[in-house]
Amino acid sequence: MQAALPALTRIALAFAIWCSLGLPAPAQTDPLPSWNDGAAKKSITDFVTRVTTRGDADFVPPAERIATFDNDGTLWGEQPAYFQLMFAIDRIRALAPMHPEWKAKQPYKAVLEGDMRAFAATGEQGVAELVMATHAGMTTDEFAKVVADWAATAMHPRFKRPYTEVVYKPMRELLDYLRANGFKTYIVSGGSVEFMRVFAERSYGIPPEQVVGSTIVTSFRIEHGRPILMREAKIDVIDDKTGKPVAINKFIGRRPILAFGNSDGDQQMLEWTMAGNGARFAGLVHHTDADREYAYDRTSSFGKLDKALDEALAKGWTVVDMKRDWREVFP
Amino acid sequence: MQAALPALTRIALAFAIWCSLGLPAPAQTDPLPSWNDGAAKKSITDFVTRVTTRGDADFVPPAERIATFDNDGTLWGEQPAYFQLMFAIDRIRALAPMHPEWKAKQPYKAVLEGDMRAFAATGEQGVAELVMATHAGMTTDEFAKVVADWAATAMHPRFKRPYTEVVYKPMRELLDYLRANGFKTYIVSGGSVEFMRVFAERSYGIPPEQVVGSTIVTSFRIEHGRPILMREAKIDVIDDKTGKPVAINKFIGRRPILAFGNSDGDQQMLEWTMAGNGARFAGLVHHTDADREYAYDRTSSFGKLDKALDEALAKGWTVVDMKRDWREVFP
Repeated sequence: MQAALPALTRIALAFAIWCSLGLPAPAQTDPLPSWNDGAAKKSITDFVTRVTTRGDADFVPPAERIATFDNDGTLWGEQPAYFQLMFAIDRIRALAPMHPEWKAKQPYKAVLEGDMRAFAATGEQGVAELVMATHAGMTTDEFAKVVADWAATAMHPRFKRPYTEVVYKPMRELLDYLRANGFKTYIVSGGSVEFMRVFAERSYGIPPEQVVGSTIVTSFRIEHGRPILMREAKIDVIDDKTGKPVAINKFIGRRPILAFGNSDGDQQMLEWTMAGNGARFAGLVHHTDADREYAYDRTSSFGKLDKALDEALAKGWTVVDMKRDWREVFP
Repeated sequence: MQAALPALTRIALAFAIWCSLGLPAPAQTDPLPSWNDGAAKKSITDFVTRVTTRGDADFVPPAERIATFDNDGTLWGEQPAYFQLMFAIDRIRALAPMHPEWKAKQPYKAVLEGDMRAFAATGEQGVAELVMATHAGMTTDEFAKVVADWAATAMHPRFKRPYTEVVYKPMRELLDYLRANGFKTYIVSGGSVEFMRVFAERSYGIPPEQVVGSTIVTSFRIEHGRPILMREAKIDVIDDKTGKPVAINKFIGRRPILAFGNSDGDQQMLEWTMAGNGARFAGLVHHTDADREYAYDRTSSFGKLDKALDEALAKGWTVVDMKRDWREVFP
């Protein structure tokens, strides 16, 4: 510390002189440079200014500045299929040599042959079986390692970059901007919580304890004298649709003042957010950009946006038009 | 802000002068004044010093400094019965005029007559019925109000002060001390999460999103055009024993480096904490002080401490002897 004192002294003196001269504050840089100027960007910055300005009727104390974000299609991509499904498919292929019986058994056969139509025909039960074969039957530590290894090597088929870099630059800026204004940012997603936690800190600056998602049952056991948590082949909670406000209440215990989603799975989270007292913000990412990303909404298999879009338009929620409102899409 | 500038200037100048004079830092005050000097206090301060000293082999980055605390018997009292059970009993009495049938029906009859032996005879089913009659069938907002009203008026029968002030001053100091050293402090309790969240911020400085506990099923509904969360008469998760490491993994997603409990219900949380890599701390509050609080352990109906005490003694975990180690008990 001794060596640091003169530097501290200089900083303090400079600050004192600057204060006494009454100079204006340094010019503000744009906190959202990847957003084009327009109604969507303005609705965000106006909201943040109001809730953070002491004396404003809409001022919200920092502790209550909770913001929740969907993940798939809101913070990162979800086409040509949910990235967690892509993970499960990659995992089936990696495990196939140890399971010769899969060649003749659905849904594995369809996955190994890349026959998505046949896989779709196996329905919800096929998806559940796929998830259980790839996400269960191992400890929490083992699963985290499998996901980390996949995230480090798997590439998005169109963008030829790791899935963890198929994240929306404007949304990453929005997360940073909110945190710089005292918000606590959460993911509230239908994805598996232990899948997202592996990369959420690096990709979004969101720590594990602020990731809420779907869960499978885990069991505590002592094995070889050491406690482990085993992931059982049983769904615990699906954090989607009405499950989102339920999970927000259970995990966070405060109602968000800002929520962002992109699909009908987020509709109840936005409704729950907007039903609180005081200033509120609800936003939807509308995928309108087939050139730079994808264009889809009311009829998509992944990230269907239909009823929530109608409600957003009727109630004046912010709808972000990707093509119009985002200067850049990816980092 | 204009008016504040001269004051800021004076503070900055004073700081600059103080730095340039090279005066020593103010003497460190004892962060745990309600703890008597001894092995328990020393084990805590030694641990905190090691994990927060850069360059020490046991240094832990701030983001990973997760500390979890049981509530009943660890942060506040649990005698003559769990305070949440006292709340349920008070609630039954308050609701009785609307339920004349309770006079002839167990477990209500026993509660209304103050016959704890008859109530105990109704067993687990009696407790479950009592909880459901007092904790369910209303919205989350309504329940929070009921708890807040009770906390503001109900008095502990022996200490004649609100239950929310029957909190252990040494443990409150410990929470403050940990937070001042970059720890994130959590409650992980068998109590109902929505019961504890009402007073955790005021009593312990722990915000709602850092309270983990038992839950009942809630349902999202739209009523009269407004979304609500209804508390259903169905247990969701019991956050006790093996449920504690499961809940820590689900809600926090990081393994604590410090955990404190007081009963066999905390044993698995402490085991899970100690099984991680690097420096670890496990503590138990041992209730040994019948004069100032209560003395109980291996045979108590509430907060039974038997197997966890054996494991603590065998493994050298810190056992806090309330009578010997605490200078003061209550604020």
